[in-house]
Amino acid sequence: MAPIANIPDSSFPRVVIIGGGFAGMRLALELSKKQFEVVLIDRNNFHQFQPLYYQVATAGLEPSSISFPMRKAFQKFKHTHFRMAEFLKACPEKNEIETSIGNVRYDYLVFAIGADTNYFGREDMIRAGLPMKSVGEALRIRNTILEHFERALNTDDPAEQSKLINIVIVGGGATGVELAGALSEMKRFVLPKDYPELDFSRMGIYLIEASERLLAAMSPKSSATVEKYLIKMGVNVHTSTKVLSFESNKVKTDKTPDISAEMVLWTAGISVPKVEGIDKAEVLRGGRLKVNRFNQLLPYENIFAIGDMALMTEPDYPNGHPQVAPPAIQQASLLASNLDKLVSGKKMKEFHYQHKGSMATVGRNRAVAELGKIHIRGFVAWAFWLFVHLMSIVGSKNRVFIFMNWMWNYLSYDQSLRLIIKPSKRKIS
Amino acid sequence: MAPIANIPDSSFPRVVIIGGGFAGMRLALELSKKQFEVVLIDRNNFHQFQPLYYQVATAGLEPSSISFPMRKAFQKFKHTHFRMAEFLKACPEKNEIETSIGNVRYDYLVFAIGADTNYFGREDMIRAGLPMKSVGEALRIRNTILEHFERALNTDDPAEQSKLINIVIVGGGATGVELAGALSEMKRFVLPKDYPELDFSRMGIYLIEASERLLAAMSPKSSATVEKYLIKMGVNVHTSTKVLSFESNKVKTDKTPDISAEMVLWTAGISVPKVEGIDKAEVLRGGRLKVNRFNQLLPYENIFAIGDMALMTEPDYPNGHPQVAPPAIQQASLLASNLDKLVSGKKMKEFHYQHKGSMATVGRNRAVAELGKIHIRGFVAWAFWLFVHLMSIVGSKNRVFIFMNWMWNYLSYDQSLRLIIKPSKRKIS
Repeated sequence: MAPIANIPDSSFPRVVIIGGGFAGMRLALELSKKQFEVVLIDRNNFHQFQPLYYQVATAGLEPSSISFPMRKAFQKFKHTHFRMAEFLKACPEKNEIETSIGNVRYDYLVFAIGADTNYFGREDMIRAGLPMKSVGEALRIRNTILEHFERALNTDDPAEQSKLINIVIVGGGATGVELAGALSEMKRFVLPKDYPELDFSRMGIYLIEASERLLAAMSPKSSATVEKYLIKMGVNVHTSTKVLSFESNKVKTDKTPDISAEMVLWTAGISVPKVEGIDKAEVLRGGRLKVNRFNQLLPYENIFAIGDMALMTEPDYPNGHPQVAPPAIQQASLLASNLDKLVSGKKMKEFHYQHKGSMATVGRNRAVAELGKIHIRGFVAWAFWLFVHLMSIVGSKNRVFIFMNWMWNYLSYDQSLRLIIKPSKRKIS
Repeated sequence: MAPIANIPDSSFPRVVIIGGGFAGMRLALELSKKQFEVVLIDRNNFHQFQPLYYQVATAGLEPSSISFPMRKAFQKFKHTHFRMAEFLKACPEKNEIETSIGNVRYDYLVFAIGADTNYFGREDMIRAGLPMKSVGEALRIRNTILEHFERALNTDDPAEQSKLINIVIVGGGATGVELAGALSEMKRFVLPKDYPELDFSRMGIYLIEASERLLAAMSPKSSATVEKYLIKMGVNVHTSTKVLSFESNKVKTDKTPDISAEMVLWTAGISVPKVEGIDKAEVLRGGRLKVNRFNQLLPYENIFAIGDMALMTEPDYPNGHPQVAPPAIQQASLLASNLDKLVSGKKMKEFHYQHKGSMATVGRNRAVAELGKIHIRGFVAWAFWLFVHLMSIVGSKNRVFIFMNWMWNYLSYDQSLRLIIKPSKRKIS
């Protein structure tokens, strides 16, 4: 018998939430204000603000600016318990889950684990590609890029230098586009000042997308605008291009000459990790779990999935909702009130996604935004992007510090966090 | 034959500086303005502001706030070249050094590597003690403390909890005192809010010093003030107490009952790492290198040592200067002008240390400072400490952000960086 995790119990029904991303965090906050005992489990002790990972990767923001300590969010709720732990397995027959800190009983269980990088089974990218699905991975990209520039100084050979400082981004969704834009600004404004000995014509930034346009989730016009921006900024954009292999520091595609590069950023897809123990639930494309309009993971009536993990179809979204923050947050909010209804025997309300708009930024004064029928671009879209992201960040301190960082970077044309910082490892004597 | 490192050459005499701490950084900056070619070598790509490591370790400041990118400091000097590399060995007979990026020729060589933790050969502390001599090590302390609090929630056993959250600091110099003060403020103001399930009477903070008083470098009166402050703040201060062993999560001393603890912060001493290849130079206590009044490492006339590494005696300092920032900075400044004199055949000037004062802070509104005959304490000393440290920080952005962080922490009683952040490792598929 596995030990029982040491978590206080109460007479309130207990909701166990796995994952403290946008969905899990919102649900935990809303349930904390109601008559529930909430147990929130995450492998990290902080909430991560995904939309700005790319700014950590390109030395524009601190990891801490986009990370918020979980415990601080729940300080005032005495029936909410956060535990830093790994989820291992669900045991629906016992209404329990197994975790790295012992078994946890639940009345209601909510999966909000989110999605991880999808390598589509490609061994080359699993081995050598750089993913960006956590603050830690974004920080690794920052360290890797800076280390490569340091190494490039140690050679005189132009081909060797190119191999070291070329950057290939695979995947032209919002993440790939935003990374490409930020890297091209580093190449123009920051790196030449830091590395006057290097010839920056030797550095290529490549954005490769298999489908026929960037930002497939937005309108063709926005895609075209973004492609034009990126080309103007010196990014080599290749749409309708498939990466065939990445071996021996060479990227082969079906359209371009081979690209010599050690750094390949993989932003080509996401998939939902396999959830042990829920064998009766239906698993669909990309590992997503089929849920009904109440986010219930049938046939389990007291188990739910929300956010990127969940695949819910409704007439307007026959293939499910996009895997981004807004549906996750909206599902979490509705589920909080539906759980209340469920407990008091009332009828639950069906979910309907309110799409407010999409946007992506490419660089200073350059972005696209679509709000219903209104499509904007350029400075106005960029300022709007900044405003929306600033307002979505958790924590007033983070908001102030991000705003100050952005102002500083904007005025000084300088991403100042060009630091290769790692926590030291315990020395082996 | 080892390869030659790829570094541009010029007709100016080349000064190679190893280490970009207070001494190396200052020397490189001053020589950059003169007719020298400067090669600065450091294993990190950033300068580290040592006096504030303890605030990184206790979640008060960001690692990046006290780290400054080397390249930014030297952007405007085209005869100065920074290289991120490990120094391996000096070859004085060839006027060359061996490094991890190849051999580097010099006309003048300056060692400014600083000092590292001195474990006095103690295997127990090398294996399990937590040192704090770099930003990376400070970050590891932060992560370790937070992880221990998370783990403490998983048990009900009071003795087991104490073992997990007790903190023993060995060494009552400025570093130990400042850490003890900051930890006691975390214990009082921050941690109980984050961990309402824990009983904080089970957490002990121990400061153990072998000699008879804390802050041996300051006056007995300041030592007494600081000890009084710490005791009032709940720190268990044990002077004249030797740590006998740290085995199986138990600290044995010659005076106290055994202390059950997994976390032991080792701030008991520093030593200068061995320098390969300078066998003819005299190595003294703590590995320090004997230099003359021009910081020359005789018998080598074109090799110098400055800062913590150097042991220079003068009538007022028969045992050498204290291993702190001010003598390092003053030696660097004088050496810059002396190298100028040396090249133009003029007579070099002897170094004389101008002691401006010492200070240490214990917590909000509590510090001691000695400026010549003027000894102050309490709020005035504390405000003075803040001002001096703020002004010494490299980089106006760092200054603004540290000031804002301090204001925020002071007003909110909240060290907000309670994040266990690590760059992710490459996954092994």
